[in-house]
Amino acid sequence: MEFENRITKLFAIDLPIIQAGMVWASGWELASAVSHAGGLGIIGAGSMYPEVLRTHIKKTKKATSKPFAVNLPMLYPDLQAHINIIIEEKVPIVFTSAGNPTKWTSTLKAAGCVVVHVVSSAQFALKAEAAGCDAVVAEGFEAGGHNGREETTTMVLIPMVCKAVKIPVIAAGGIANGAQMLAAFALGAEAVQIGSRFVCTTESSAHIHFKNAIIASKEGATELGLKSLAPVRFLKNQFANEILSFEKQGATKEQLAERLGKGRAKQGMFEGDMENGELEIGQVTAMIDSIQPAADIVKEIWKDFTAGVDHLKSLPISRSF
Amino acid sequence: MEFENRITKLFAIDLPIIQAGMVWASGWELASAVSHAGGLGIIGAGSMYPEVLRTHIKKTKKATSKPFAVNLPMLYPDLQAHINIIIEEKVPIVFTSAGNPTKWTSTLKAAGCVVVHVVSSAQFALKAEAAGCDAVVAEGFEAGGHNGREETTTMVLIPMVCKAVKIPVIAAGGIANGAQMLAAFALGAEAVQIGSRFVCTTESSAHIHFKNAIIASKEGATELGLKSLAPVRFLKNQFANEILSFEKQGATKEQLAERLGKGRAKQGMFEGDMENGELEIGQVTAMIDSIQPAADIVKEIWKDFTAGVDHLKSLPISRSF
Repeated sequence: MEFENRITKLFAIDLPIIQAGMVWASGWELASAVSHAGGLGIIGAGSMYPEVLRTHIKKTKKATSKPFAVNLPMLYPDLQAHINIIIEEKVPIVFTSAGNPTKWTSTLKAAGCVVVHVVSSAQFALKAEAAGCDAVVAEGFEAGGHNGREETTTMVLIPMVCKAVKIPVIAAGGIANGAQMLAAFALGAEAVQIGSRFVCTTESSAHIHFKNAIIASKEGATELGLKSLAPVRFLKNQFANEILSFEKQGATKEQLAERLGKGRAKQGMFEGDMENGELEIGQVTAMIDSIQPAADIVKEIWKDFTAGVDHLKSLPISRSF
Repeated sequence: MEFENRITKLFAIDLPIIQAGMVWASGWELASAVSHAGGLGIIGAGSMYPEVLRTHIKKTKKATSKPFAVNLPMLYPDLQAHINIIIEEKVPIVFTSAGNPTKWTSTLKAAGCVVVHVVSSAQFALKAEAAGCDAVVAEGFEAGGHNGREETTTMVLIPMVCKAVKIPVIAAGGIANGAQMLAAFALGAEAVQIGSRFVCTTESSAHIHFKNAIIASKEGATELGLKSLAPVRFLKNQFANEILSFEKQGATKEQLAERLGKGRAKQGMFEGDMENGELEIGQVTAMIDSIQPAADIVKEIWKDFTAGVDHLKSLPISRSF
């Protein structure tokens, strides 16, 4: 082990760097590359039919002997089919999100899985802990994709969640480099979950047009929309601007759902329709300026994290105050 | 000096902890208490008539020989009168906010003031640097009161601003304790500006009802509203909920301005009308649970910051990776 804390021990990984499970971006290629590099790679099951998920799990196992995880958004219609495959394929770690952890945690734990739930508040973190989860991901307002209703940012959320629960906390939202990882540790997190930065990798299955749009994006490029349905952070393209202005004019939930339609995320993120597709990404998109192999990103973040620790060590602090 | 970096040298202060200038909360009592404790106290001129400001400056000088500052929101109608008093009274440091730094920075610099501008984006930080400012405050979405349109959070904003400018960066938004201060330093900041925590002090001029409402508040207690006018983060009381639902129904700018009316912040924060007043406060309100003397807060934050540095030093990092 390169680094030991409760999270690296829980997952049996070298580095407390976790690649978020993301629809249309994180299949077996990305997940296995991150796990192989010493972090934890996660297959995003939210965009996969059950048998597609099985194929990705099998390919991940073939590509690396290291631990990996599956992310299961609990909004998925046929969740039982996904759960069955996860158990049959002996997936060691499951991240659940976008739903109630009470329902499936005990089933997964009974099958021998480590279970982590993604939360947006200390209140939900307490629920996850009570449901038997081994850890939580606390994800702030700046994160891409599905987002909490409280709009609490990572800077405020992490210390509140760390104070509320005894299980280890993984910070997410606004983290793309070693300095941000160090900030998360300063706030009490024991690992980071990084999404957007890993979308822009060689191994990500996101469309090249989407990767290029991330590189081209500047500050203020994203906005949280669809708030009356389920809040999502996305790049402000033609589709997003229509939705946002429709919301500002007071559109109802039903009107929004109709305008949104089906398959928007696939259309944008996977098929590369930059005008009419939904492009889920976090605020850190403005800081991303290259497509790199996932392993290089893991190494760079770790290097910058350790350099940041050295910098803080060198601060000329007097203890006399 | 207890701690030396570009900010403590620029302001000639002991600790890189700055109390934000806030309407209706930060008069001479709070500003002088923070400065006297080794940080930098700021008189919030935004709620003061010119001669009231002069009185607060004179009283601050009498109460402490340490450096202090005045915060000048550039929305104020008679800005020239404020500027004249600042120059006549030889205020050493001026923080300007909510406006264009190009107009007044050179006047203030010519009069011998150190000038700092508050920004919500790297683009505005570059403008402040070009205008001759000595430093910038970069303030994230989680901050109370007036807020940027980009909604960039502190976690994302600070590294972007630090990368963009050469002048030192002071982090603001979501910072109320030593762990959050350490996170800000990890992101590259050289000081922190803290608002909400100092509203809840013995010396703050905020109404006791407002202080008690801060203590009682839980996560999700604030929201950013009035977005089509000038975005403001406030506690969700009856007034705020009316405004927010009015906005969600698609109210125009003019309708919002009419509903808002005049003097709402004074009514809430200073006069203690918890139903109909505007209560400007940041997301960290949920973490605040006591009214304390400002000096105790300065000391506690510094103690926890240095303890956090020690904790990071003790991380079992292997360099072989």
